[in-house]
Amino acid sequence: MYNIIDGNQISKVILDELKVKCSDYLKLNKKICMVDILVGDDEASKVYIENKKKKFDYVGIEFKQLCFDSSISEKELISKIEELNNDDTVNAIFVELPLPGTINEKNIIDKIASNKDVDGFSVKNLGALLQGNTGFFPCTAEGVVELLKRSNIDLNGKNCVVLGRSNVVGKPVSILLLNENATVTICHSKTKNLKEICKTADILIVAIGKAKFIDDTYVKDGVIVIDVGIHRFYEQDKKIVCGDVDFDKVANKTSYITPVPGGVGPMTVAMLLKHCIETINNE
Amino acid sequence: MYNIIDGNQISKVILDELKVKCSDYLKLNKKICMVDILVGDDEASKVYIENKKKKFDYVGIEFKQLCFDSSISEKELISKIEELNNDDTVNAIFVELPLPGTINEKNIIDKIASNKDVDGFSVKNLGALLQGNTGFFPCTAEGVVELLKRSNIDLNGKNCVVLGRSNVVGKPVSILLLNENATVTICHSKTKNLKEICKTADILIVAIGKAKFIDDTYVKDGVIVIDVGIHRFYEQDKKIVCGDVDFDKVANKTSYITPVPGGVGPMTVAMLLKHCIETINNE
Repeated sequence: MYNIIDGNQISKVILDELKVKCSDYLKLNKKICMVDILVGDDEASKVYIENKKKKFDYVGIEFKQLCFDSSISEKELISKIEELNNDDTVNAIFVELPLPGTINEKNIIDKIASNKDVDGFSVKNLGALLQGNTGFFPCTAEGVVELLKRSNIDLNGKNCVVLGRSNVVGKPVSILLLNENATVTICHSKTKNLKEICKTADILIVAIGKAKFIDDTYVKDGVIVIDVGIHRFYEQDKKIVCGDVDFDKVANKTSYITPVPGGVGPMTVAMLLKHCIETINNE
Repeated sequence: MYNIIDGNQISKVILDELKVKCSDYLKLNKKICMVDILVGDDEASKVYIENKKKKFDYVGIEFKQLCFDSSISEKELISKIEELNNDDTVNAIFVELPLPGTINEKNIIDKIASNKDVDGFSVKNLGALLQGNTGFFPCTAEGVVELLKRSNIDLNGKNCVVLGRSNVVGKPVSILLLNENATVTICHSKTKNLKEICKTADILIVAIGKAKFIDDTYVKDGVIVIDVGIHRFYEQDKKIVCGDVDFDKVANKTSYITPVPGGVGPMTVAMLLKHCIETINNE
């Protein structure tokens, strides 16, 4: 019988811990504020941001929304970010992606002061990750490691196979797992014998963006599976939400598995909130 | 019968290519100058630097040595680096490590302008490596990949096992191999079943700092072995130079193997020189 790694429950515990910390800081007159920058008026982003804001409210971190018309220039946006970098009342800066095609995303993200870059994608924070130094690291990647740790799964010397080499998940989670003394194999679309390699995994992290790609033929008995994918579609008028892993086929072979939804998903915002609280230490 | 990957020969070819480029730049009145900073008077460093300087002379890149007393403060050294960052006649800055214990190495290295950081260890260049962007990447790691490419070894989809997770070699070479579409496994002192994992390698990169650690029981037939280690010691009054791989035991099982000395070693300076030439593109 397998164990479900319940991301909703674990992230709730984290949020409650952060709420206590936040309230302690408030007593010391240390208020935390994150500025969330949205360029354009993408409806899907707005729904996502609204859900995020609720969690900020819950923890007690101020969530300030800045909206710009999609006609804003790269130069104007950079100057706005520099203003926020120098604003002592702003602890954290988050830029909603994607940005309009007229703006180079990397230029914008790298302009955020690294001690306010709670999303962890600026060049300095990624460099710190590779250096093995402190910094803010990509939230979803950190969320994966946090799920494992909070489930009391020992990573030391474990064979971790990471499927996917994106900047958002695959590469950063590989470095984080390495820092936890795991042996890490990074696989991707060009990998040969994928099945054979996946079967060597004690812990399998799947972030390849292909719905139900991993079935029971990819895993060994007792494996721990973390499914980072999320896919939403209709099948015969029925709304389907699933991950990169075919849960029904795989679960019985696992010792631990994350569901989709309710696995890695809620951890991303939890790690973002954790980073916001941590900005206080960096002051 | 195995093939020797001759680092002396390959690096000589690279130096000759760079010499031509350098001479072309000189015709355009573009002179390249690297400033090499040495703090203290370590004799071993001086011998190493003298050898390095000869290669700079050969290629036609000016090698300017700056020596400071070991009593120099971190602040003074940083101010010197900032001066060099702003000096248009200086293309490249290299700080000899280790620095005296009174100086934080990371603080110094991160102060070098990323477009002059030819050693590739500043936080911005390491971040660029993880982002998959352009930059200067650690020379030895790049030298390993260059050796493979110049030996016409296809990396696409190959299983590369990297032994060692240092900032200097293990981590950067893993990312570089991943960028070449290899499947990469990173092993280290906490790895279990090391032998078993090494035997899955099509290409084995060894950088663990243990003399002759890898023998024939660690490799499969036909493997390609890159030995990054170098050890010098005396055995019964005889001077021994060897790598992390027991060459005599392993070579006959390989299809390609680097010797020590004369394998990866000469590639480090070759990549440093390549970076110096590339500073011209960044202007």
